[in-house]
Amino acid sequence: MNATIQTLNKHCTIRQYANRNIDENLLNLLLAAACRASNTGNMQTYSIIKTADAEKKKQLMPAHFNQPMVETAPLILTFCADFQRFTQWCALRNARAGFDNFQSFIGAAIDAMLAAQNFAVAAESVGLGICYLGTTTYNAQEIIETLQLPHLVMPVTTLSVGYPAENEKFTEFADRLPIAAIVHHETYQLPTESDISAFYSEKENSETYRRFVAENAKQTLAQVFTDVRYTKANNEFFSEKYLQALKNQGFL
Amino acid sequence: MNATIQTLNKHCTIRQYANRNIDENLLNLLLAAACRASNTGNMQTYSIIKTADAEKKKQLMPAHFNQPMVETAPLILTFCADFQRFTQWCALRNARAGFDNFQSFIGAAIDAMLAAQNFAVAAESVGLGICYLGTTTYNAQEIIETLQLPHLVMPVTTLSVGYPAENEKFTEFADRLPIAAIVHHETYQLPTESDISAFYSEKENSETYRRFVAENAKQTLAQVFTDVRYTKANNEFFSEKYLQALKNQGFL
Repeated sequence: MNATIQTLNKHCTIRQYANRNIDENLLNLLLAAACRASNTGNMQTYSIIKTADAEKKKQLMPAHFNQPMVETAPLILTFCADFQRFTQWCALRNARAGFDNFQSFIGAAIDAMLAAQNFAVAAESVGLGICYLGTTTYNAQEIIETLQLPHLVMPVTTLSVGYPAENEKFTEFADRLPIAAIVHHETYQLPTESDISAFYSEKENSETYRRFVAENAKQTLAQVFTDVRYTKANNEFFSEKYLQALKNQGFL
Repeated sequence: MNATIQTLNKHCTIRQYANRNIDENLLNLLLAAACRASNTGNMQTYSIIKTADAEKKKQLMPAHFNQPMVETAPLILTFCADFQRFTQWCALRNARAGFDNFQSFIGAAIDAMLAAQNFAVAAESVGLGICYLGTTTYNAQEIIETLQLPHLVMPVTTLSVGYPAENEKFTEFADRLPIAAIVHHETYQLPTESDISAFYSEKENSETYRRFVAENAKQTLAQVFTDVRYTKANNEFFSEKYLQALKNQGFL
């Protein structure tokens, strides 16, 4: 197994950071590696907003439900789908841009995600730890306002970045479903009831997850996800919010 | 610069493949590394459909506008946002799933993209070449039918994978915008006219792109993008198609 695959396999989320800044030259090297990722038509329709200022991090906190790493990480990176820059270029070059639509958003969001993951891999390869903030698609509108994102710029994901705190350890092979659950051959095979039990049994029997179930006073682990963490009502509420933000930014 | 960052910096798209299959054990190692990527709530709401069968690849061809690598690559991987498996698990565990909405789609699509990029990086680290097929979001409905994707499974991106043909070379540092075009400090800075010229000047003055402009009988490179490659009419047409497919699969 080569060094790159070892880096990928050692990934785990780091939420607590040492009080140590990231060297500017190193950061630029990581950002450059992020931008090497594939992207649609080599248009690079994404932007990365760096937040390092303490006051600005504080302003971002509520959008991320006050998760402490937004303040404690030395660096927050917000990855955005961005057709603003490309559209400005078109306007200055006598070209009629037509990127104010959902297809352009999806393409640009894919670009942004590939760059984010390249950044995450590069950062972990030099001993930094990262955490993805899924709250980005919950409270996009608040992030748009805080970071002053213009028309055709839409936040897609956020990384907190820093050196791991002493009590944080990289765990090799974080728990994942077996590959057979994820990979389908030629066509999609609907899992049977016994397939589902096999796929989720390690998770359901792990001590950590058993504790989750007990702490939340639920009967099953699945109920922790549906009744506590990702309820239908919340999913629907945040769907409307994100769709509205997409409209506000000109993508719908 | 370490081996991982070197792998990232050496990325370039490979569209022609040697007549050589990918060892099954190696492929499983790469797929396992793909699944190490961060994902929403560790729900892993994505699936990867492997297409290696010649007949099935032929069936996929029209959805990808008959791009030859769909047939000539030994392997096609379609990465899908997938809440079907998780919803089945919930149903079997007395949990009321509520993932038939846009927020769940976006979260699952992000999961799928991070896994895809991990796969791309792992594959390139062992000498394989990849090409992302943006056509996936143009003709998702046709892909859904060919791969028999059920409710709550939506294609997001596709990779063609194989050893590079002899005439294909990995080029280090494929052309990209300067980092200053992509990265913003604390808040979004709208580029000025001279910023835009600086960001795009290398591209506009490159021999390859000058040839594009001449071959397409256009005045500016931007017009090649707006009038030929990504027209407003096409973007709008494929937006409607993808939104309709999202509805059909239960995410809207």
